[in-house]
Amino acid sequence: MSVLINDIEVVKTETSKINDIDFDNLKFGQVYSDHMLVCDYENGAWKAPKVMPYQNISLEPSAKIFHYGQSVFEGMKAYKDADGGVWLFRPMENFNRLNISSKRLAIPEIPEAYFLDGLKTLLEVDQDWIPQKEGSSLYIRPFVFASGTGLHASPANAYKFIICTAPSGSYFSGKVKVLIETKYSRSANGGVGYAKAGGNYAGQFYPTQLAIDKGYQQVIWTDDTSHEYIEEAGAMNVFIRINDTLITSPTSDRILDGITRKSLIDLARSKGINVEVRKIKVSELVEAAENGSLKELFGAGTAAVISPIAGFGYQGKDYELPELKETYASSLKKAITDIQTNKAEDPFGWRYKVL
Amino acid sequence: MSVLINDIEVVKTETSKINDIDFDNLKFGQVYSDHMLVCDYENGAWKAPKVMPYQNISLEPSAKIFHYGQSVFEGMKAYKDADGGVWLFRPMENFNRLNISSKRLAIPEIPEAYFLDGLKTLLEVDQDWIPQKEGSSLYIRPFVFASGTGLHASPANAYKFIICTAPSGSYFSGKVKVLIETKYSRSANGGVGYAKAGGNYAGQFYPTQLAIDKGYQQVIWTDDTSHEYIEEAGAMNVFIRINDTLITSPTSDRILDGITRKSLIDLARSKGINVEVRKIKVSELVEAAENGSLKELFGAGTAAVISPIAGFGYQGKDYELPELKETYASSLKKAITDIQTNKAEDPFGWRYKVL
Repeated sequence: MSVLINDIEVVKTETSKINDIDFDNLKFGQVYSDHMLVCDYENGAWKAPKVMPYQNISLEPSAKIFHYGQSVFEGMKAYKDADGGVWLFRPMENFNRLNISSKRLAIPEIPEAYFLDGLKTLLEVDQDWIPQKEGSSLYIRPFVFASGTGLHASPANAYKFIICTAPSGSYFSGKVKVLIETKYSRSANGGVGYAKAGGNYAGQFYPTQLAIDKGYQQVIWTDDTSHEYIEEAGAMNVFIRINDTLITSPTSDRILDGITRKSLIDLARSKGINVEVRKIKVSELVEAAENGSLKELFGAGTAAVISPIAGFGYQGKDYELPELKETYASSLKKAITDIQTNKAEDPFGWRYKVL
Repeated sequence: MSVLINDIEVVKTETSKINDIDFDNLKFGQVYSDHMLVCDYENGAWKAPKVMPYQNISLEPSAKIFHYGQSVFEGMKAYKDADGGVWLFRPMENFNRLNISSKRLAIPEIPEAYFLDGLKTLLEVDQDWIPQKEGSSLYIRPFVFASGTGLHASPANAYKFIICTAPSGSYFSGKVKVLIETKYSRSANGGVGYAKAGGNYAGQFYPTQLAIDKGYQQVIWTDDTSHEYIEEAGAMNVFIRINDTLITSPTSDRILDGITRKSLIDLARSKGINVEVRKIKVSELVEAAENGSLKELFGAGTAAVISPIAGFGYQGKDYELPELKETYASSLKKAITDIQTNKAEDPFGWRYKVL
């Protein structure tokens, strides 16, 4: 039996799984809330979204998602404050980027109301799934994929837009060491690197596994032409602190326009930190590590928030970062999570109240 | 109820669709045979494959195929000769390339027997679906995708290997005009371009649609660094005939090692045609078109076989190919399809008898 919430059809589960979940020991993205939002594209239009119990999807083997990787996604988080208020962080940025990604992958763009009202309704229905504990949040995964069939390599005529959510703890555990990659590449000039396209991630798994086998957790990608310039870390953008200047690469058609990245640039500047958005040579990083001017290296992304990097490998040599008592990484992480979780003023207007 | 054929468990459909199919008017990859082969990877091993009725696949919304594009595929064809004999063309090449692709995408490799015995059994069960009409064949689509769940961007712990088949006519209809692309790119140095990875195809859809809107059918990709060199056409490798020399680009980590491509190189050489495998500048193609030495341009791939190109666009200008009476494209197409369909001797040992 369905009810209408915010004019959206909602079918509630009869068997909630919430009591099976250990909210004190959450991993990242491994348990899913009771409901999901589903929206179908058929006959040239997106149909009205529905909230329904989290359940399996049934597809023909000839559905194009299985063959041609036609999919895009987003990553967001919902936070619950001390008073039980529920917040999102810059959701319109995710909405806009989802459609930018979709356009590049020849996927029809989603109407704003279906995305935002759909998400708000889903969060209302599953509000008890949003963790309140510090460091935890409800990870939100909107994704769109080709459900239409056919073995011709061309765009599908049917798609599914789904949002599922997962109460989650931190993305990385322990110290993060990264390998600066000079053989494999993440993306091409004129390619899909700026889009959150599924295929961008699968292509990183093998080189990342090779790095893990060598004792690193992540790869920092360099440009595919010269391998001289630092790009991004695949699941994170990268920030480098040399002396008291924070440097990050400009976005391009190869680099994701990270929402945490651009928020940190604004936050750091508002704290009086000198931020340079410019291309960075690996040689500059290495030189700074050698002469002691390299103070910090960290990744930034929705899933990982800010992930300090303890060391990096490059061309067979390992470089350690100094262990500072006070870091930009920790002060910026506190500043952004305080805004996200309604513990601090929000001079930028980034916080978005859901409930 | 299941039976054993070639030691493989087979569950036959009770309701064949074969009488609904118009075998005289087949399109490409739009109708599927009654059965499919399914093989699951779980707990670190591929389980024995099964043949079962073609049916929907049920997956959790958190299955990694929907999020991270972790999938690879192959394209093959089965041919039925005048005596009802059933043939494949160089199937071990497809098997080997599937595993090369899988390795790059961090997908566990398939055992040879599961692939080959599985495919033979599937073809035996669905042998009535193999068209005998000239220009038609049974298109075979082996594919592997991540069925394991989790929102962490890392390889799945479960996969499905499926083979489905589709009685098919030709891939292209009518004259093919191509656009030489100089803005968008298909693949990066050090990327996954040499693999038949799903994401390689989705990334081409939007630029191809832009080309279609301008009156072309396909894009010829150039290298992403300089856009000066001809790479491949996405669903086909490219051959250029200048005077009496046939030229094709060498394979690389950006270019698919096409089975039709390498077969044509051998076939052409056996006919005494001078074949050069070397990098080709777009400027060389344009110059040859302008001075009249450009005789032919064609694409080569399993789906399209050989697809003559009638003209190409480059930087806003269109170039027409001459209409020759006797072309390398048509003589090579006849030679390769005669071998594939058991109408000619097979000095290379490419043909593989299934039934």
